[in-house]
Amino acid sequence: MTSKRKDIKYLEYVFNKFYEIGSTNSGGVTRLGYSKEEDEMHNIFKCFGQEENFEIYVDEVGNTYVANDITCKEHYLIGSHLDSVVNGGRYDGVAGIIAGLMILKWAKEDKVKIPIRVVAFRCEESSNFGLCTIGSGLITKKIDKKDIENLVAKNGEELKEVFKEKGYNLSPKKISNVKQYLELHIEQGKVLEEFDVKVGIVSDIAGPRRFNIYIQGEAEHSGATPMNMRFDALCAASEFILELEKIGQHEGDKKSVATVGVVNNLPNVINVIPGEVKLGVDIRGIDTNSLDTMEKRMKEVIEYISKTRSVKIFIEKTSQLPPVKMSLHMQKKLSECSEKLKISHKVMPSGAGHDAMAFPEICDTALVFIPCYKGISHNKNEFASLDSIFDGARVMYEYLKGEV
Amino acid sequence: MTSKRKDIKYLEYVFNKFYEIGSTNSGGVTRLGYSKEEDEMHNIFKCFGQEENFEIYVDEVGNTYVANDITCKEHYLIGSHLDSVVNGGRYDGVAGIIAGLMILKWAKEDKVKIPIRVVAFRCEESSNFGLCTIGSGLITKKIDKKDIENLVAKNGEELKEVFKEKGYNLSPKKISNVKQYLELHIEQGKVLEEFDVKVGIVSDIAGPRRFNIYIQGEAEHSGATPMNMRFDALCAASEFILELEKIGQHEGDKKSVATVGVVNNLPNVINVIPGEVKLGVDIRGIDTNSLDTMEKRMKEVIEYISKTRSVKIFIEKTSQLPPVKMSLHMQKKLSECSEKLKISHKVMPSGAGHDAMAFPEICDTALVFIPCYKGISHNKNEFASLDSIFDGARVMYEYLKGEV
Repeated sequence: MTSKRKDIKYLEYVFNKFYEIGSTNSGGVTRLGYSKEEDEMHNIFKCFGQEENFEIYVDEVGNTYVANDITCKEHYLIGSHLDSVVNGGRYDGVAGIIAGLMILKWAKEDKVKIPIRVVAFRCEESSNFGLCTIGSGLITKKIDKKDIENLVAKNGEELKEVFKEKGYNLSPKKISNVKQYLELHIEQGKVLEEFDVKVGIVSDIAGPRRFNIYIQGEAEHSGATPMNMRFDALCAASEFILELEKIGQHEGDKKSVATVGVVNNLPNVINVIPGEVKLGVDIRGIDTNSLDTMEKRMKEVIEYISKTRSVKIFIEKTSQLPPVKMSLHMQKKLSECSEKLKISHKVMPSGAGHDAMAFPEICDTALVFIPCYKGISHNKNEFASLDSIFDGARVMYEYLKGEV
Repeated sequence: MTSKRKDIKYLEYVFNKFYEIGSTNSGGVTRLGYSKEEDEMHNIFKCFGQEENFEIYVDEVGNTYVANDITCKEHYLIGSHLDSVVNGGRYDGVAGIIAGLMILKWAKEDKVKIPIRVVAFRCEESSNFGLCTIGSGLITKKIDKKDIENLVAKNGEELKEVFKEKGYNLSPKKISNVKQYLELHIEQGKVLEEFDVKVGIVSDIAGPRRFNIYIQGEAEHSGATPMNMRFDALCAASEFILELEKIGQHEGDKKSVATVGVVNNLPNVINVIPGEVKLGVDIRGIDTNSLDTMEKRMKEVIEYISKTRSVKIFIEKTSQLPPVKMSLHMQKKLSECSEKLKISHKVMPSGAGHDAMAFPEICDTALVFIPCYKGISHNKNEFASLDSIFDGARVMYEYLKGEV
């Protein structure tokens, strides 16, 4: 068996062990953060560590580590997550964990003396508690006790009860001795695929700002109300949606995006003019000035629509995270490694948030993307090839070897 | 007690007896067609007939009649309905029944020898079975057995089972001997209120055409997909909604309207670009040419958006009813009666559908509107004053007296 064939077999073996956990009738998986499905994923992760005689430990919030040397305090941390959204895919997060295990195995086989720990963070997705990157956020102090102590899971369980039951700590001590943090993740976009590039070296992780927009018009009979007597909340919403699209397009050269992902229309019946619409807005970018510009323009648009259509519009900012820069040094080195291995690469921003966001204040941080089919993610059709995971892992391993 | 005070007392007495039936926590009422709540409403209606020693009978589909003389075959029929939408108001339909009872009482007190039957039709609202005016439609043969035999109620019950259980007939014989049909209904719009007019004499009932519009774009990560790589189904939908609004406004002088009342957005989460949107469209008008124009333009807009945004759009016509003309002779006479009684009136179209739609092919038909507060209907806040019901009934009674 060639070395690559053997490695792909190992990646497949690991991937398949995770496969069934949380499978749903839809064809996808539901492995919510701090659920028993996520526990199972972590247990399987531990088994892979045991198989290779690595050290295994769990931190104060339930993140699981597999390490090749815990006597050496300072270490390279490779992380990602094992939870999923509802009816999600099998690669988001998992690909990074598999890559980490592969790298640990290579280092062992090659007897490369480099202290590596692979960590599976808890609850990266916001699907269960409405808050993302809880595991990585807590141990890096990006998330505080007060941010999480009142969170409630989809099933009604309180996060603090889960923590109490498991013996976790809502105020864990800050992680230390991490020399560098690395993460491999599926792109969750189609840029790599469109550019036909094998690996993305992430320059920045976009900062999302989220808003709820409440539009209040008048719900009236769709047949009995002449066009010139209407205050149609959905027409006002449509005007906003198209203006927001223009705002995003205008800032496109700065790698910013603007999206209305959520529409709740009331009463949503065929014979009533919509009286109330709630929109969920997500704007993201790696340039704070551009984000500020988009937010300002969005507010101007709201004021204009409110005036011209005589509808009430309220705006509520629900969250804001700043953009985060990845280590320039690591980007450069990873690019060089890609070239050396003849694996095509592209330096690019990440529009999606990842556990890697939590580390730049602690240590040099790098994020490596691999393509996923048509950019599809958070969906049963999510797919990344084992070859891609292999390529991404090789670039990261090449980089780590250079650190010895 | 003055005569008017006594009459208002009677209207109040009747209204209050219906009040509690189907009351919900929201403050409104749910009295779905062919439900036990509608049965209760019909039973109360029968009681009012008994109190005044009128004749009472129920037809083959459950419509209930209160008549002052069933020996005289040819009769004037005053109708409306006693069912409601989910969490609806207490005036839609009920106002017409109360007015009918008032008119019967006046004719009795005044010893006016005119054969009047007041009918409470079953299931006027489409809320329970997705089809409206079932009771009036069946007995006028506007609705056939095949239109209803597969209908299923909100609670899962089949209409044919309900009919079997109650001994109703899916193919009843056609109603006969109706000389003229009259109906009083709340306007369900705000035209009368805006014009400060007490009574509307309806010229035409608008013909609704309904469509589902299916828009298929690509659901992608809202952060990871650059603006120029998107196929946002919601942006395409917004463009359609605004174009449809313009189409309606353009045909406004022909009393046409166009509304998107329903939006279903998928997956409807904050971090995913909408991939699929379904819209529910309702266009109405009293002028068939105008309706044809609107439908044609709507299709052109769909083609344009589909091309320019590279999204797939499918259009499905779910129903189409022609506009219906009310009797010109009766409009003229009713207008004269209003003038005589010094009750201000306005000849106007009805945008909403009513049981009256079923009768013009059978006999001369008239529909009288009374104002409702702010045009609000299908809602707990629906309100019409007893004074308005009194005024509308007086105009109709004056008309009927002229027929003796």
